Order: sequence, then C-alpha cells, then structure tokens
Amino acid sequence: MGHSVSDDFENRGEQWTYQMENGQTKYKVGFPPKRNLFSEFHERFHETFFADDPLRPYKDKPLSRKLLLCLQFFFPILDWGRHYDFKKFKGDLIAGLTIASLCIPQDIGYAKLANLDPQYGLYSSFVPPLIYAIMGSSKDVAIGPVAVVSLLLGTLLQEEIDPTQNKEEYRRLAFTATFFAGITQAALGFLRLGFLIDFLSHAAIVGFMGGAAITIALQQLKGFLGIKKFTKQSDIISVIKSVWDSAEHGWNWQTILIAASFLALLLAARYLGKKSSKLFWVPAIAPLMSVIISTFFVYITHADKQGVQIVNKIKKGVNPASANQIYFTGSYALKGLRIGVVAGMIGLTEAIAIGRTFAGMKDYQIDGNKEMLALGTMNIIGSMTSCYVATGSFSRSAVNYMAGCKTTVSNMIMSIVVLLTLLLITPLFKYTPNAILSSIIISAVIGLIDYKTAFLIWKVDKFDFIACMGAFFGVVFGSVEIGLLIAVLISLAKILIQVTRPRTALLGNLPGTNVYRNIEQYPEATKIEGVLVVRVDSTIYFTNSNYVKERILRWMRDEEEKLEAKSEPKFNFLIIEMSPVTDIDTTGIHAFEELLRTLKRRGIQLILANPGPVVVIEKLCLADFTEHIGHENIFLTVGEAVKACLVKSRIHEEP
Amino acid sequence: MGHSVSDDFENRGEQWTYQMENGQTKYKVGFPPKRNLFSEFHERFHETFFADDPLRPYKDKPLSRKLLLCLQFFFPILDWGRHYDFKKFKGDLIAGLTIASLCIPQDIGYAKLANLDPQYGLYSSFVPPLIYAIMGSSKDVAIGPVAVVSLLLGTLLQEEIDPTQNKEEYRRLAFTATFFAGITQAALGFLRLGFLIDFLSHAAIVGFMGGAAITIALQQLKGFLGIKKFTKQSDIISVIKSVWDSAEHGWNWQTILIAASFLALLLAARYLGKKSSKLFWVPAIAPLMSVIISTFFVYITHADKQGVQIVNKIKKGVNPASANQIYFTGSYALKGLRIGVVAGMIGLTEAIAIGRTFAGMKDYQIDGNKEMLALGTMNIIGSMTSCYVATGSFSRSAVNYMAGCKTTVSNMIMSIVVLLTLLLITPLFKYTPNAILSSIIISAVIGLIDYKTAFLIWKVDKFDFIACMGAFFGVVFGSVEIGLLIAVLISLAKILIQVTRPRTALLGNLPGTNVYRNIEQYPEATKIEGVLVVRVDSTIYFTNSNYVKERILRWMRDEEEKLEAKSEPKFNFLIIEMSPVTDIDTTGIHAFEELLRTLKRRGIQLILANPGPVVVIEKLCLADFTEHIGHENIFLTVGEAVKACLVKSRIHEEP
Repeated sequence: MGHSVSDDFENRGEQWTYQMENGQTKYKVGFPPKRNLFSEFHERFHETFFADDPLRPYKDKPLSRKLLLCLQFFFPILDWGRHYDFKKFKGDLIAGLTIASLCIPQDIGYAKLANLDPQYGLYSSFVPPLIYAIMGSSKDVAIGPVAVVSLLLGTLLQEEIDPTQNKEEYRRLAFTATFFAGITQAALGFLRLGFLIDFLSHAAIVGFMGGAAITIALQQLKGFLGIKKFTKQSDIISVIKSVWDSAEHGWNWQTILIAASFLALLLAARYLGKKSSKLFWVPAIAPLMSVIISTFFVYITHADKQGVQIVNKIKKGVNPASANQIYFTGSYALKGLRIGVVAGMIGLTEAIAIGRTFAGMKDYQIDGNKEMLALGTMNIIGSMTSCYVATGSFSRSAVNYMAGCKTTVSNMIMSIVVLLTLLLITPLFKYTPNAILSSIIISAVIGLIDYKTAFLIWKVDKFDFIACMGAFFGVVFGSVEIGLLIAVLISLAKILIQVTRPRTALLGNLPGTNVYRNIEQYPEATKIEGVLVVRVDSTIYFTNSNYVKERILRWMRDEEEKLEAKSEPKFNFLIIEMSPVTDIDTTGIHAFEELLRTLKRRGIQLILANPGPVVVIEKLCLADFTEHIGHENIFLTVGEAVKACLVKSRIHEEP
Repeated sequence: MGHSVSDDFENRGEQWTYQMENGQTKYKVGFPPKRNLFSEFHERFHETFFADDPLRPYKDKPLSRKLLLCLQFFFPILDWGRHYDFKKFKGDLIAGLTIASLCIPQDIGYAKLANLDPQYGLYSSFVPPLIYAIMGSSKDVAIGPVAVVSLLLGTLLQEEIDPTQNKEEYRRLAFTATFFAGITQAALGFLRLGFLIDFLSHAAIVGFMGGAAITIALQQLKGFLGIKKFTKQSDIISVIKSVWDSAEHGWNWQTILIAASFLALLLAARYLGKKSSKLFWVPAIAPLMSVIISTFFVYITHADKQGVQIVNKIKKGVNPASANQIYFTGSYALKGLRIGVVAGMIGLTEAIAIGRTFAGMKDYQIDGNKEMLALGTMNIIGSMTSCYVATGSFSRSAVNYMAGCKTTVSNMIMSIVVLLTLLLITPLFKYTPNAILSSIIISAVIGLIDYKTAFLIWKVDKFDFIACMGAFFGVVFGSVEIGLLIAVLISLAKILIQVTRPRTALLGNLPGTNVYRNIEQYPEATKIEGVLVVRVDSTIYFTNSNYVKERILRWMRDEEEKLEAKSEPKFNFLIIEMSPVTDIDTTGIHAFEELLRTLKRRGIQLILANPGPVVVIEKLCLADFTEHIGHENIFLTVGEAVKACLVKSRIHEEP
C-alpha cells in the first residue's frame, strides 16, 4: 500500500513539476470576494464576545424547546438531573461527606483570615454551594470560602475599617464587598467579558498563589505561637518583626506544642494522601479528627487556663438575613465596590482555573461565561444571607474529584452537613484551640506553593518567570493588591514588547525541496544567489511597522556587505515570506509603500510570498499596494517566488 | 534556459518524491542548539533598544577614529560639512530665504495661538534652527514653532495660569514647559525609547492633526471677525457659541473684508502651488506679501481707527536670556513637567514623521533616537533663550524640500533672516492687522486636514478608522488632550483584541501541489479524508491560549457534524499548521497539553506542522511537550504531515 501512496504522490509531484515547467503555477494568491461593510465588524464582534457560539443549540427548534434549553442553560441541574440515578448519588454522597469534614475546620479558620467570626465561614459553606449546585456547570468544583480570597478580603477591608473596634460596620462592609463581587462576576458573565480573566497569565497566577500562601502561613504564626498582639500588616517584614518582638514574653509554649504536633500529623496525612490515591481520605478527614482530638484534649486539661487561646463561642443556628446590612449608598458603598471587584475577579480566576482543570481531566467543556453567572448569583444571594465571598476551593475540589463525585450534588450534601453542624454541634467547638486552626490552614495552603511549575516556567519562558516572581514578591513583600498589579502590568508589557519588536528571520532553501526555512534553525538551508528571502514573524501594526521596515533594510545591508566581502554579485530580489503576517494595518501598509519605494530606487524588486490570511491580502488590495507592487510579484509560496526570480535573472543575463 | 531551470527543478521534484516514497522526509523540524541563560534576554533587549545597532561603525577602529565618529554622531555637520560646496549652498540659500519669508508671518500668528507676544514666535525661529542645523540628521525638516504644538501649549498653559492677568508667570511657565519638553525628547533619545512614539498610530495622527487644524481655524475666527471678547475654550461648541453671541455688535466689517480678501488670495496662491511644482514659491511668499500689503494699507487708511485690530508693538532686538525664569521647584515645576511631556511627545511625533517622509523621498535613513537628542537639546537651549517649543513644521519643510534644500544650512539661512528681522524691521509690523495673521494661519492649517488618507483608512481598516475618528472628534469636541488620550486608548485596545481573539482557519490542499491554504481564500482547496488541518494565526499567549484551544475544538465539532450529516467517516488526525505561531508562552503550552489530552481521549492524533520560529520549538522542547506529543508527530510541512497520516490510516485499514 505504501506504493499507492507514493504513486499518488508521484502524480502530484509531476503535476507540480509540470506547472513549474512553464515558469509559473496555475494557482495565484487568492483574492477573496469583497465583504460588505459591516460583515467584518460583525465577525470580529462575534468572535470576541460569542466565540463559543452559545445560540447554536437554539437554531430551528420549536419555541417550547427553546424555552426548555434556555432554562437548562441557566439551571444545568434540569439537564443532568433527569439522568440522575442512585449509582451517581452514592459517589456524590461519599464525596460530599468527605469535603464536608474537610471544609468545616477550614471555614472556621478562613473566617478568621477575613477578620470575621467563625460562624460566617460556615454560613458561606451552606448557602453558596446550594445555589451553585443548581446553576453551576462544573461537576467537580467544591464551593466555599477559600484562603486567598479570605486573606485578600481581610487585608482590603481592614484598610477601611478596624475589625476589632467597629465589628458591626466591618461586617456590613464585608457583605457589601461580597454583594459587589457577585455583581461583578455575574456582569462579566452576562456581558460575555469572560475573556478578561485571561489577562492574568498562568505564570502570574502561580506566583500570586505562592505568595499568598506564604503570606497566609505567616499570618498563622499568630495562632501558632499564641501571640496576643500581632501586626495588621501582611507583608513578610512587619510580620517577622512583630513575631520577633513578642519572642521573649509573647509566645505560649503549650500552644506551640499543640500546634506543632498536630501540624506534623496533618503533614504526615498529606504525605500519605499524596503517596497513594487510595488514601485520599486520610488528609481529607485528618483536619476534623485533629479538631475533635485537640478540642477534647483542651477540654480535659483546661489548657485554656494556661493561655492556650480557644475559639470560645461560635453562634449557633442558621444564616441570619443580611440584605438590609449592605451599604448601597455613601462612601462605604464605593469602597465595597472597589474591594468587591478585586475579590470577585480573583475568585473567578481561581474557580474557572479549577473548573477547567477538572473538566479537562473528565473531558467535558466548561462555559466560562455561564460559570461566572453561577458564581455571581451565588455570591449575590450569599451577601444577603450573611456569607462572604465564596468560590471554588482547590484543595477541596481535588478531594471531591478523588472521592468520586459525579455531579454538583456532592456540594449539596456538603452544605447539608454544614447546616447540621450549624444547628447542632457548633457549641462543641467552644474549646477548639486557635492553634489547631492555624495548623490546618498552614497545611492547606502549602499545596498552593507550586515550585515545580515555577521552575518549569523558569526553564521555558524567562519573561513569564519575571511575571511569576513579580507577583510572588509583590504579594510577599508588599500586599496582595500590589502583587496583582505587578503581575498584570508585566503581562501587558510582555504583549506590547512582542508587538513592538517582532522577530524576523532569513530563510534558506532546504536542498532538494521547495521548502524555505530559517537558516538559524536549519543550518543545512542554503541561500539562493541573487535573492534574499526574509520572513516577518508578526502582525504588522503601527507599533512595529517602522521597526519591521528598518529591520528588513538592515538584513539587506548586512547581507550585501557579506556578499561584497566575498565579492559575489549583489541580489536583485527581496522576497518577504508573509505567512506569519496575520494582519496589517494602514500604518503597516504605509511602511510597505516606503520600503517598496526605497527598493525600487536601489533597483531591487520586492516580492511577497503567501500573504496568508484573507484579511491581509484584502487590505493590501484595498490600499492598492497590490497594484503598486504588481500582481505578478505576489506568489503563493516562497518556492514559486524564487523560481520566478531565477527565471527573470537568467533573462537579464542573456545578451 | 527555461529548460535548465525546469531540469534543476525536476531533480528537486524527484528527490522530493524519493524522500516520500519511504513514508518520511530526510528533514525533521530543526531543534536549535540550546542557548545559554541570558543570551535570549540579551538578544531581546538588544532588539528592543538597539535595533539599529548604533555601535556597528565603531567596531575594530582606532580610538581617534572612534572619537571622531562619536562626535560626528552627535554633530552630523562634522560629517556632511566636509563635502559641503557652493552648489549645495546655492540650493540651501534659495530654500532658506523662501522658508524665512513663509515662517516670519506664521511665527507671529502661532505665538498668538500660544498666548505669547509675537516676538516669542520669532525668537523660536532663531535659536532652535541653529542648534538643529548642527545636530539634526534630516536634511529637509524646517524647524520652528508649529500650529498644533502652539495650540496645545496655549490650551494646556491657560488651564493653569490666565495669560491676560499674569502674563509674567504665564511666560515663565511656558519656558518651564519648553525646558521639560526638551528634557523629555532628549531623554527618550538617550534612553533609546524612541519606539514609544510609534504607539501613536498613523491613523490616530491623521485624525488628531485634522481635528487640531479645525480647532485652530476656529480659534482664528476671533481675529478673522475682529471679535474682542472670545471664549478660552477650544472645543467647537463653545467657540461657535461665542462667535454667535458676538454676532450683533462684536463683528467688525472692515476686519472681515481684509481677512476674507487676503484669505481668498492665499488660497488661490496655494492652489497655484499645488497645480505646478514650479510655482511652489507662490504660496511660499504669498503670506509675507499679504502682510506687507495689508500693513501698508492699514497704515495709509488708518483702518486701525475703524476698529481693525493690529499687532501694535513687537519688541525689537535679539532673544533675551530666560534660564533664570524657568521654574525648577514648586507646583509650577510639576505643572510645567506635565505640559512639557505632552508637548514634547507631540513635537517629536510631528518632527519624526516629517523627517521620515522626506528621508524616504530622498532615500536616506533617519535615526529616530539621534533625531530626538537633537530636538531635545534644541528645545532645552531654546527654553533658556526665550523660545517656546519648536519642532519640524510640515508646511515649511515641504517648501524647503521643493525649493531644493540640500542640507540643514537652509535652516541657518532662515534663522539669520529671522535675526535680521528681529534687529531691524520688527517695528514695521506695528500696523499689521491681526486679521491677516488669522487668514495666514487658516490657509496654513488647511493643509493638515488629510481627508484623502482618512478615506483610504476607512476603506482599508475600519478599526484604524475608529481610532482616526476618535482622535478627530476628541480634539474637535473635547480638547487636544482628550483627542490624544482617545487615540492612544483605541490603539491599545486594538492590539489587545488582536492578541485576545486571533484568527484561525481550516486548510485544504491545492489539488496537484503540496500546498495547503485557507479554504475560505482558495475555494479550490480540498479537504483530506480523515484529516483536519487547522491554522492558528497568532502567537499563543495567556491572553488567547484558552480561546485558541476552544476554537480548535469548535472547528472539530463543526466538521464532525458535517461529516455525520454526509455519513462520512470521522477524522483521526488533527494537524495544526504552526507557521504563523511566532511565539508561545507557558500558558499557551499548558493549553496545548490540555488539547492533547482531550484529543487522546477521543482517539484523535494531534500533529504539529512547521513550528516555525526557533523560540517556539525551543519552548515546546523545554516544556517536554515534544515528548508528550512524540517527535514523530512534528513535521516540517503540512504536506508531509498529511502524507504520514494517510500512510498511518491505511495501515489501520489493513486487517
């Protein structure tokens, strides 16, 4: 069979040869039909905002069906709910119970990160997951308060209001921020601006998360060492300073003992879980276990009398309404808005990233915009039921996934368990030492420090690494905000540099083929006498058009000098390989016109090879550049262009 | 000879065929040698800041030579001065006299635009041209005050200080702004940040200039209609309003008569000059002529008694020193800095644009950074000798060029003539009616309205047109600053959209060739059974990596549906044509990994064709993606990739 292939190729080869025999090909660069005025706009708009073509399933369906589809779009549960069965439920039940046992202690700890009373953490693990279970499209994300957002909220809020002095306003501002975070998320989803979160690059997120993890861990030294008066700043300098200052008298050895021993235990559990995926449940229930044990221990030993700080009181009962507490007017509303937007974006980034990761593993698609609507709605309703910003938690989602969850029902199970906890057993947490919560948080956030990826980034892309480190150090030495800002700025700078200084390359022919490649990359590629082939590796826009022009002229100058040195004949043709030039604007065309003029004056013929994407040739056409350069000087491939040049030059040589 | 060509091609063709016979090519995608740690950085840095390779001439030269070259770099006159001869001088003399006659009346008018006394316009045409003549590298640019910068300066300054109430401070602030404008320009040149001005796109400049021209023309209605109290605002609404309000009593028919008749005369001259390039001198000297005539006319008719406003007094004598008047400290220094930076940038943009245009016509290179140094120094010294911001004037440069200037000596001639004017004949301007200056300015700025280009932009690139119109209306209805801001923002938005939503295309084979092209662009291109070929038209960065992934999956989904409809077999191979992918970052690689995983699960083989630029394959390598996908699945061309697929699929078909 290998034959039939090579045969059919042979034919192609011959045809190809045949085409070239008479000096030219039967294909010219395609000039697409002129598109009417707004089709281009519309296309661009559609690709920008409706890239996923959401209305597709609605095409030519009866109205009733359309309504159902629409409902199912907003409430996926109506879709998957119909095929829900006991087998799936079993998976969800186990997963739900596991993540519940993991989230309860975490919630209490995270609430403290946000400077809120412990119960608010639990509240946020009750309502939001329920909403998400109905509206969310990811099967694996576990919803609830997360460390980074809690820290972010905590630091941003206490810049405005002191949580210890006026608790009441602080909490109200927290709800306000949560409300606006929800609005932001829902709005982004509704306006289909989901792509905005892509402006935070993977590298930046890695750095940001790592930095946040370290900052959070440092914050825990308060509970870990039993320090009473601790700094409000979150940067490493002031934290270490305040730890050091309290070294003589401020520390409490009993606390340290409990914290250290349980941290060791948790880390051991974590290690086990990593070791074999069968033991995933060990790290999952370890936190709850250690809470129970340590609480019991403190209760019988009265360690709280020896200065071991305890949770003391967690308010019993279900979420109180808080809609009336949100600031809708006044300066606090604005502050809440500002904080909410930041927290909302971070929450989104985390949730979507997690959703996509697990969706990838189970091979289903996540609709970013739909997801944002779900998360937004959940936080809006949350803000009215005494919850603060909730989102997808990585650690719990991972457990959820490994515990074999099938649908968002696992989130429902979890929230029911949390509800029961709130109704029945919160009083039992009275004697839980804060130290244990610190240990739990530390062991939880350690997972966020992804040094492996950081190293990979370093290996692969130095610029990404700068963004990564910028975010990291920004968070550690500055604040969460500063880290974010740095990350975004560096990322933008990267794009701008890339569009300002595109790469260019000299091409050579791979002997025995029609293929022309970068001579840097393919040493065997050989230059053609009398012809210079240059490739421009970027769109030609106003930011780089002048550079591109001058760079091409520089290539020419350098090559000409080499030729002079070897006293070889100069070249008469400059071929620009346009394949990578995916767009050109008027400034770019302007530069080309200038280049053409300069070359004409030097008696060098400019030739374009494969102005690939429709839009480029279209624009060159509209600007009459194709006329100025001459249609006969635009070729389908570099190979053909070179052929033509050789033919021409031989004609010239003839007397 | 046609034969020899086709022969040598035949051989190629055969070799080519031969390669394919045994199912694969002898060329694989080149894996470049690993570059050491900072070479990549260094290269990027060098291309960004030293793209023009300025140190090149200094290579292996004796020290004395190096010093000379260095001096010549900063003072090009040392270079061209040595070959200067009488023939060149003749050209420069004529050109110099012509632009002098053009600049004197313009200077007086422009000074009024900047709310300064007339003599400051003349001062600015004396010192700066001299400096530029020594340091500048453009042979054709004519230096002096220009309309747009004068207007910009005028509007920005009077926002800070009222020029009528405290003239003194206003002037001092103007010098301060000029000083910082110079500093900005010199700094940009010295730090080699010249490329920053490229961020103002050609389209934006066209719109901006047009808007500024109209604003300036409207400002002239004051002098044109002889209105006494006129609005300080520059936007069209308030100008028209204030013109309208003064309609009953404010206008002065004698003024209007003079202004209108001379405007007609000037426009006629302008038309003549356009008609035949031999008559270029007609519009060049027309302004001076009309000044002389109208002045004489007013003098004998005592029209000034009938309310025709006249220049009255122009201070006689050469520039007084003003270094001591610059604010180096206090809030005015900061305001001066802000205004200076803006004015400096605009000045640069205009000068460099002009320089490049004429350099292109005479085929010599302009070194942007060197040019900025020259302009900067000239304004710094200017600010110390009672000059305000000077730059390259388009109208005068054009005249300079057509009058046959050879070197910057024409600028010297001009400045000498201006000097003589200052020393001897300024008193004669006493009776010059302001109306005439208005007419001169109007006829001068009309040339800035480039509707032809605007229309071309509209035809070629709608997005550029938006930027153009944004700048235009921003200036006309808002202010010069607002116009600028809009222009820059739209330009940036364009880049971001382009990197967020890159184009992708389905490729098909051009029957009888190995060439694969966009099936939209080439209807004859045919798809290959069992293989889907997709091209990504952009760098794959964090901003678009997720979109690219999903878009490719969407292409697959759509195609699969089509195949199902025709109940044809599904495809087993997805080939991604990477030629246009000129860079990829870690987020992009991450997306590719996910894509690979998804495809594997669906039993589709992912194949990469021609990961072109060195850096891409390098990064894929470092990230071990090449391992995951398998080296055998990376091909040099789409053609080869398809070949391999066909081979494979046939193997599968066999029992």
